[in-house]
Amino acid sequence: MVSKEPLKVALLGCGIVGTQVARLMTQQADELAARVGRPLQLVGIAALDPQTPRPGIDSALFTPDAAALVASAPDIVIELMGGIEPASTLIRAAIANGASVVTANKKLLGVQAGELFAAAEAKGVDLYYEAAVAGAIPIIRPLRESLVGDEITTVMGIVNGTTNFILEKMAIEGVGFADALAEAQAEGYAEADPTADVEGLDAASKAAILARLAFHTPVTVDQVYHEGIASLTPDDIRAAADANCAIKLLAVAEALPNGAISVRVHPAMVPLEHPLSSVHGANNAIFVSARQAGRLMFLGPGAGGVPTASAVIGDVVAVARNRDHGIVGPSQAVDPGRRVAPIGEAMTRYHLRFHVKDQPGVLSAVAAIFAKHHVSVSMVRQMRPSVTYEQSPWSAELHMATHAAPESDQRACVAELTESPVVGDTPRVLRLEGL
Amino acid sequence: MVSKEPLKVALLGCGIVGTQVARLMTQQADELAARVGRPLQLVGIAALDPQTPRPGIDSALFTPDAAALVASAPDIVIELMGGIEPASTLIRAAIANGASVVTANKKLLGVQAGELFAAAEAKGVDLYYEAAVAGAIPIIRPLRESLVGDEITTVMGIVNGTTNFILEKMAIEGVGFADALAEAQAEGYAEADPTADVEGLDAASKAAILARLAFHTPVTVDQVYHEGIASLTPDDIRAAADANCAIKLLAVAEALPNGAISVRVHPAMVPLEHPLSSVHGANNAIFVSARQAGRLMFLGPGAGGVPTASAVIGDVVAVARNRDHGIVGPSQAVDPGRRVAPIGEAMTRYHLRFHVKDQPGVLSAVAAIFAKHHVSVSMVRQMRPSVTYEQSPWSAELHMATHAAPESDQRACVAELTESPVVGDTPRVLRLEGL
Repeated sequence: MVSKEPLKVALLGCGIVGTQVARLMTQQADELAARVGRPLQLVGIAALDPQTPRPGIDSALFTPDAAALVASAPDIVIELMGGIEPASTLIRAAIANGASVVTANKKLLGVQAGELFAAAEAKGVDLYYEAAVAGAIPIIRPLRESLVGDEITTVMGIVNGTTNFILEKMAIEGVGFADALAEAQAEGYAEADPTADVEGLDAASKAAILARLAFHTPVTVDQVYHEGIASLTPDDIRAAADANCAIKLLAVAEALPNGAISVRVHPAMVPLEHPLSSVHGANNAIFVSARQAGRLMFLGPGAGGVPTASAVIGDVVAVARNRDHGIVGPSQAVDPGRRVAPIGEAMTRYHLRFHVKDQPGVLSAVAAIFAKHHVSVSMVRQMRPSVTYEQSPWSAELHMATHAAPESDQRACVAELTESPVVGDTPRVLRLEGL
Repeated sequence: MVSKEPLKVALLGCGIVGTQVARLMTQQADELAARVGRPLQLVGIAALDPQTPRPGIDSALFTPDAAALVASAPDIVIELMGGIEPASTLIRAAIANGASVVTANKKLLGVQAGELFAAAEAKGVDLYYEAAVAGAIPIIRPLRESLVGDEITTVMGIVNGTTNFILEKMAIEGVGFADALAEAQAEGYAEADPTADVEGLDAASKAAILARLAFHTPVTVDQVYHEGIASLTPDDIRAAADANCAIKLLAVAEALPNGAISVRVHPAMVPLEHPLSSVHGANNAIFVSARQAGRLMFLGPGAGGVPTASAVIGDVVAVARNRDHGIVGPSQAVDPGRRVAPIGEAMTRYHLRFHVKDQPGVLSAVAAIFAKHHVSVSMVRQMRPSVTYEQSPWSAELHMATHAAPESDQRACVAELTESPVVGDTPRVLRLEGL
């Protein structure tokens, strides 16, 4: 069987992940041929710097001309350039030429997944993307295939290692965001321009991809509400610790009681007994709740050239097998009937802290405001205020936790608390997840 | 596309899992048809008690004659009877008739996987078994497909919920094994005859299945070394806690430095910071180390009718899609070149505790015995002895941890310690994993 004609594979992009993919395809050629039932031949590598020596990879494979490589009729195109262009144009050209595509490009899929999957489906080719979310962790395949007979209710995860690393540094070392970011940059865990990571944009792309897959709903990144971690303070971290929680940047996609889906990225307090709270360093983890299967968690390295390359190669083998059999993988078709809810409809629990007058009747006044906005209180604790407030009229610090309530009700409640004569500052709100 | 002829599905066995599978196939018929691209028609259900009313399932489907149902030329046979016979004969008949098979039968696969996969491959049909290991957790598919381009070095997991539940009860309540077992039985977490669970036989079948898949090596359950949990005492649990560990029953399959694979089931001390230590109750978790992907963990419900049914349905959809396309899934072919090592070659760390004379020179004598057997010591602590030993000549209790060493060296070391004049009892040995 392995004596069949090889399948031609073109690699676009040869950075950290691409180099490892090229290396694995070379070193494990026999193993991969056995798995596919047919050899895979790397026919070219498009790189911005084709002259850079890359040990173990045949230098004759390199070309600066990605478009010409795609036009040379490869069977499979692996796109590891990242970003919107030229990746989008090249992937569309590959599909139009009848090639199957494997990509790790979360940014592109966050924006154009609908058009790209439609193009692939119309042409009868595969577009696989396991490496686009959570690096080496197999999450796309389980959602797409293993849980296909189930009904997913929530997908919630830590899908950005950089922010997880920074948040852990803040928690362990007690430092502020700016210092933790600087350390992460010095140690190579954050990029020189950290915006996409710390603002939650990278996680938002992944949330869009996961939501589309889990809920068969077209979701683009601009529909994903996102808050980053730059405004988190040591006080936030301490307040979370006081409540036996860790703060994590979460990507959440969940079905709301009203039938819409909520897709969002924000920091949240996660109880220490929840497995997501103990995801360390640059690891990723994704927690899936499904009607039948129950609560599943997938944990592992979320980035890095070698782990991500493993996920790419897994897809290449699957796509190659499909091609050898003349078939494509399960449909990516979506049911457009489901609405993506605005953030106001999102239902979460909240943790609020604010300063109040330390006198009788204050708790009653505060509780009345919560009740008026239908936000049900699950916990109230009076804490020692910080030095700033000790000598002020607002010498009691209240920590309150709520049951799940719509974001819009919470915001209205917070607005009224801020205006109340018994409250001295704007309540600080952190969402509570995983209870 | 969905207007094609339905694929005929026969269900063998209608216990806890089978009932849920039949229910899901009925309730989600449209959804499943859309995923497969073709309707699935449940043509019969073989049950020992066909007259028992099962709400939501058409009673006309039931038959006591499983062989006749298999002979009626279904496209897909779902085997959920469990046990070796008649399951084996029925699955072989199904394959011989050209049906694809989905099974959750770990016991059968632990013994006959080789013959069954060979029969399916020869006939060109699928034999899928996601539900045979770790219930709803997608582990077979990631090992078989996602990590196909990688090299797995270790698979280690908690794959038996009953023993995990019992061990957790022993740790939390401080009760002995017999009491914890009785409670587990009363709460429905352990069967009246708990042998297969508590002796590690159930876990051994799953270890054999995982080892075969991860290492492409034929492994049967009789090649799996197994120790159960019945001999664990509250002292063992306390000693583990003193070392910041929990005791878990682990199924382990790993590549040894000598190229053989070690496949075993035994209780082990797992450090509290390792994610396996915090797998609670009847959950399962599987930890996979791969050369490229790094360390991955999969966590979720390990049993239960509904979660297991979700895994079965995922397989049914995959098998039905394959059948509709006239193909089969990736080969289960194994490379017979790899040897399964006897337990003496297994390399683990150990935790030993024993009583010694509390006098100068004892530690040196003990250390010399470890050195003689090439077992390298990583930790020694002198503990308060139990009341029994306080007034004896052996009034010091030593806890020692070692680096990884072959089991045979450890056993020789323990034998010599037992004979030593400075040692008062046979050392209690617990393996240490996950460091």
